[in-house]
Amino acid sequence: MKCKRCSAKATVQLRSHNTAFCKPCFVFFFQRNVERSIERERMFTRDERVLVCVSGGKDSLALWDTLVSLGYPTEGLYLGLGIGEYSAASERKVTAFAAARDLPLRVVRLEDEGDGLAIPQAALHTRRQPCAACGTFKRHYFDRAALDGGFSVLATGHNLDDEAARLLGNVLHWHVPYLAKQQPVLTPRHPKLARKVRPLYRTSEYESATYAFLRGIDYVVDECPNSHGATQLVYKDLLNRLEQAMPGAKLAFVSDFLRQAQPLFAAAPDSPTGECERCGMPAFGDVCGYCRLVAEIERRRSQAVAHS
Amino acid sequence: MKCKRCSAKATVQLRSHNTAFCKPCFVFFFQRNVERSIERERMFTRDERVLVCVSGGKDSLALWDTLVSLGYPTEGLYLGLGIGEYSAASERKVTAFAAARDLPLRVVRLEDEGDGLAIPQAALHTRRQPCAACGTFKRHYFDRAALDGGFSVLATGHNLDDEAARLLGNVLHWHVPYLAKQQPVLTPRHPKLARKVRPLYRTSEYESATYAFLRGIDYVVDECPNSHGATQLVYKDLLNRLEQAMPGAKLAFVSDFLRQAQPLFAAAPDSPTGECERCGMPAFGDVCGYCRLVAEIERRRSQAVAHS
Repeated sequence: MKCKRCSAKATVQLRSHNTAFCKPCFVFFFQRNVERSIERERMFTRDERVLVCVSGGKDSLALWDTLVSLGYPTEGLYLGLGIGEYSAASERKVTAFAAARDLPLRVVRLEDEGDGLAIPQAALHTRRQPCAACGTFKRHYFDRAALDGGFSVLATGHNLDDEAARLLGNVLHWHVPYLAKQQPVLTPRHPKLARKVRPLYRTSEYESATYAFLRGIDYVVDECPNSHGATQLVYKDLLNRLEQAMPGAKLAFVSDFLRQAQPLFAAAPDSPTGECERCGMPAFGDVCGYCRLVAEIERRRSQAVAHS
Repeated sequence: MKCKRCSAKATVQLRSHNTAFCKPCFVFFFQRNVERSIERERMFTRDERVLVCVSGGKDSLALWDTLVSLGYPTEGLYLGLGIGEYSAASERKVTAFAAARDLPLRVVRLEDEGDGLAIPQAALHTRRQPCAACGTFKRHYFDRAALDGGFSVLATGHNLDDEAARLLGNVLHWHVPYLAKQQPVLTPRHPKLARKVRPLYRTSEYESATYAFLRGIDYVVDECPNSHGATQLVYKDLLNRLEQAMPGAKLAFVSDFLRQAQPLFAAAPDSPTGECERCGMPAFGDVCGYCRLVAEIERRRSQAVAHS
C-alpha cells in the first residue's frame, strides 16, 4: 500500500479514514488534524498561553508535542495523584519529556497539598469510588493552576475514543444535562475559570499511540489501576466492535452529535454564581465541591485518630 | 429459584427485570406488561377495533394472542411478500393460528396486487435493496387495509430489541427527523390514516419468544432471508453485549429516551398535505411513494419486455 500523500511505502493504515501514510506524512496528517480542530472550534490562537494537562500517557504527551510543534505557547501541568508506583512512573515520564525538550512544567502533588488527599487515602476516608474524588481534585487543581499562572486556556488529551465512550454512556442513560455540556470547547462561566479545550477530540487512541511511537515519546503504557472494570471500558469495547464492522463510525457518532443534536440539548447552562468561602474558586453553593471533599477527609481522619 | 409472584418453582428467569416466574405467572406478567404499555401510552381502548399486522413470526403472533386474551376487538392482517418458501411458510402459520382460534384474518399478497410487485422481482427491477421496496409496500398495504376495513388503530409486533436497535442506529448517525418520530404511538396526520402503535415496545425478543412457546403458538422461526448481514443485526449484537454486561440497559435506553430526550427532537412533524393522484392515499407530493415505486417497476418491466 502506498502513502496517500507522497506515494512512498505506507506504514500506517487508517481504516476509519480509508487511507494510509508513510511515517513523516502520518505525523503531518496528525498535526494538521489537531490544528484544524483547534481552528474550526476556535479553541485558542497563538496569542494565548495554553496550560496542557499531562498525565504521562500517550494522549496528553502527544498533544503537548503537537502544540509545541505547531508553535503554540504552552506550559505543562502534572497533577500527582499519589497512586503508588503508577503515579511515580507517570511523574518520571512527564518530567523526562519536559526536560528533554526544555519545556516549562508545573508539578502539583495531592500528597503535598494536604494529609489524606492522595487518591487511595481519599477514597478510603470517604468510602467512595477513587474516580469520584479524582474528578473533583483534577477539576480544582487544574482550575487553580490556570488561575495562578494566568492561563486563559486549559487543554486536556481526551481523544476520540474517550469522547465517543462518554457520549455513548450519556446517550444510553439520556443524561440531558451532560449531553448539554459535551463539547470540545467549554466557555468559562466565571472570570476565574479558563476555557477548557480538547484538541484531540477527533483523533483516535490508535492515532495518538502511533504518533507518540513515531515521535519517540516515552509514555506510561499502564492504565490507571483504578480503571479496571470501569463502565467506560464496556462502552469502549462496544464502540471498537462497531468501528470494526463500520470503519469511521466513532468519528461520525461524535461529529454528527456536535453538528445535529448537541444544540438541541444545550439549554442555558447553570452558572456558578458565587465563590467558595474556603478557597475562593467559583462555586455553585457557599463551599465548592473540592473543599467539601477535603473537609470530609479531614473529619474522617480526625475521627479515626480519636478512635485509635 | 422461586416464582416472584406465587413462590412455585420458577422456570423463566428475567435478568433484565431481576426476577423469575413460573409458567402461568410469566404469561400473566407478559400480558399485564403489554396492557400497561397500551394504557400508559394511550394506544387504544376496548371500544376501538385494532388491525394487527401479523408476519407469522413470534412477536406479531404473541401480540395478537395477547390482545385477544386481554379482550380487545382485533382482526389480523397478513401481507404476503412473495419471498419464496419463506413467505409460503409464513402464510401457513398465520392462517393456521387464526383458524385454530377462530379469529378474522385479512390476507393481501403482493403477487396478486400486480405483476412484478413480489419483493424479489421489485428489488430486481428497481435495482435497490429488497428492504427498501418492502418498507414502502408494507406502509401502503397496511394503511390501505386499515382504511378499507374502517380500523382506527394499526398494531405491529416491534419489540424492545427492535426499538433499541432502531434507536441506536438513529443515534449513531444522529438522524434528528427519525428521532423525532421514534415513538410507540404515531398519531395520524391525515384523516385516511390509522393510529400506529407498538404495544410490545417494552417487551424483549426473549420474552415474546418465551410467551409464544408457553402459549403453544406455532410460528416461523427463520428470519427473512434478506435480513442476513443487515446493519440492524450489528446493532442488535452490540445491544445484546451491553445487556449482558448491564442487565436492563436496553429498556433504560429506550424508556429514558422517550421520557428525557424524545420531546427535544419532536419538532412539528411534516404533514402529508395532499392525496396521491393515483391511489388516493395520503401523500407528500402529487404521487405517493408506493405509486412511484409501482410506476418504476412497470416501466422497467415493459423495457425488459421490449428488449427481449
